[in-house]
Amino acid sequence: MYLLTYIYKDKEYIGFLDEERKGIIPASRIFLELNIDEPKDMLSLIDIFDNVGSEKIKKALHSCKSEITLNMVKISAPIPYPRRNIFCLGKNYLDHVHEVKNLKNVNADVPKNPIYFSKVAYPAIGHEDFIDSHFPIVKDLDYEVELAVVIGKKCKNVSKEEAESVIFGYTICNDISARDLQQEHIQWHKGKSVDTFTPLGPYIAHKTNISFPPCLEIKSYVNGELRQNSNTNQLIFDIPTIISDLSSCITLYPGDIILTGTPAGVGAGFNPPNYLKQGDVVRCYIENIGELSNAVK
Amino acid sequence: MYLLTYIYKDKEYIGFLDEERKGIIPASRIFLELNIDEPKDMLSLIDIFDNVGSEKIKKALHSCKSEITLNMVKISAPIPYPRRNIFCLGKNYLDHVHEVKNLKNVNADVPKNPIYFSKVAYPAIGHEDFIDSHFPIVKDLDYEVELAVVIGKKCKNVSKEEAESVIFGYTICNDISARDLQQEHIQWHKGKSVDTFTPLGPYIAHKTNISFPPCLEIKSYVNGELRQNSNTNQLIFDIPTIISDLSSCITLYPGDIILTGTPAGVGAGFNPPNYLKQGDVVRCYIENIGELSNAVK
Repeated sequence: MYLLTYIYKDKEYIGFLDEERKGIIPASRIFLELNIDEPKDMLSLIDIFDNVGSEKIKKALHSCKSEITLNMVKISAPIPYPRRNIFCLGKNYLDHVHEVKNLKNVNADVPKNPIYFSKVAYPAIGHEDFIDSHFPIVKDLDYEVELAVVIGKKCKNVSKEEAESVIFGYTICNDISARDLQQEHIQWHKGKSVDTFTPLGPYIAHKTNISFPPCLEIKSYVNGELRQNSNTNQLIFDIPTIISDLSSCITLYPGDIILTGTPAGVGAGFNPPNYLKQGDVVRCYIENIGELSNAVK
Repeated sequence: MYLLTYIYKDKEYIGFLDEERKGIIPASRIFLELNIDEPKDMLSLIDIFDNVGSEKIKKALHSCKSEITLNMVKISAPIPYPRRNIFCLGKNYLDHVHEVKNLKNVNADVPKNPIYFSKVAYPAIGHEDFIDSHFPIVKDLDYEVELAVVIGKKCKNVSKEEAESVIFGYTICNDISARDLQQEHIQWHKGKSVDTFTPLGPYIAHKTNISFPPCLEIKSYVNGELRQNSNTNQLIFDIPTIISDLSSCITLYPGDIILTGTPAGVGAGFNPPNYLKQGDVVRCYIENIGELSNAVK
């Protein structure tokens, strides 16, 4: 099951991809079929999903035919207005730890504990939306492809063994970063939270589509040139560890998004650095999820 | 005008304090008087406040009498579920910069730019709610009295001169901090975001009650002993600078909360450190706003 938020004839809807992943089945059709009130947005859908049951939803999906195709709609971020800031992991791939050792206020030590920061994403932007460069306020504009975990239920004190059960699914995030602001302001929050710096999507792959822990190719391209190329099985702190550690003292909510870090190949890792400029197109790919493409303006 | 969120007979309401600041006038009464649909919570009230106009609201307040008193209700955080994480300033009073120089991943340099991090407050807790110590996950539990700025309108690229015009009002926050988690996880986010670590309130003082920039006594007490004692005119980066700097690249929304930093006297500043333990009561006071008291359990 692949879920999306999309705009069709100027109105925003939520829906599912059909089996060929080319057509869209509006969520309203599925919930009419199930005789359940239609959830008003993706957060509401995630809230009720487990109670309805994924098997029941899958069955309803099979009995519906798509009437509109992907090329007829504009894809939004699957959760355009997350309930809270996005939880992010810093330095969670070993090769990336080493490549950013020259940035100020970042060092080359392999972290002993997960490094968490947060990213304002209000709104997150969708596939093919523009990233606003914010030049000249932002000078060192960088990209980071990341596997995003979407939480499925309210939870606290989750053990590593239970971690998969609190997940709803996965999507892709391009954790756009202003390296200059990250360094000048010491803590990373501002440099990560600039308007339009959270491209998210295009779809949420429900967890039933992804083996656990996820072992997926993860890549990014700038203007067609391969820049990042790794696998989500390379995380220093894996998903069960992150969910168990975070939830030991912070209650997680349905729809919460956790970014799991980025592999080597970001602009700051080049010598000299290879930052984004206006007109560049960044394409983020994760196997079995999709491709998220955004141009810088 | 002082605004609050409160629980009366198991239901949550928003309201205003009367002139003696002992009685409560429910917001429903005011908006009935004004013939305007009642806002459902504090965020909705802030959304419409400027359009209605503070003079009109003040006039309606004068014509209403309070029917319930503060001792008949439980005070909640004025904004129990902020729309986004709380924006926070680190090291924004000079004496505090010096006192925390021995903490790992914090240094004694006076910041050249504002240091921003964010704090999950979902929910923020109210006056007289318990702070959950989270012992033994959290060992070094600390308090920080802070002046909290509440934003009044959606804004970007606000100049220093315009800063006051985008403010709704002010409240008090106790920025409870797990010093051990702050240091172990490098970035401060997790150590600041533990459940119940955001006591907020008791009231929002509308900006018409406070001179600008605010020049207010700010104090905290632990078990009656004065620990922090400063004035909000001692900020390294003042409120116009913060609002102008943040909004240069991040859109601010009505109800957004910005904590302006804490003065010297926190537990980490003592030698040896003087952290909170179960049973301690922290009282945060800011002149013209009120007093926010919370016990540790």
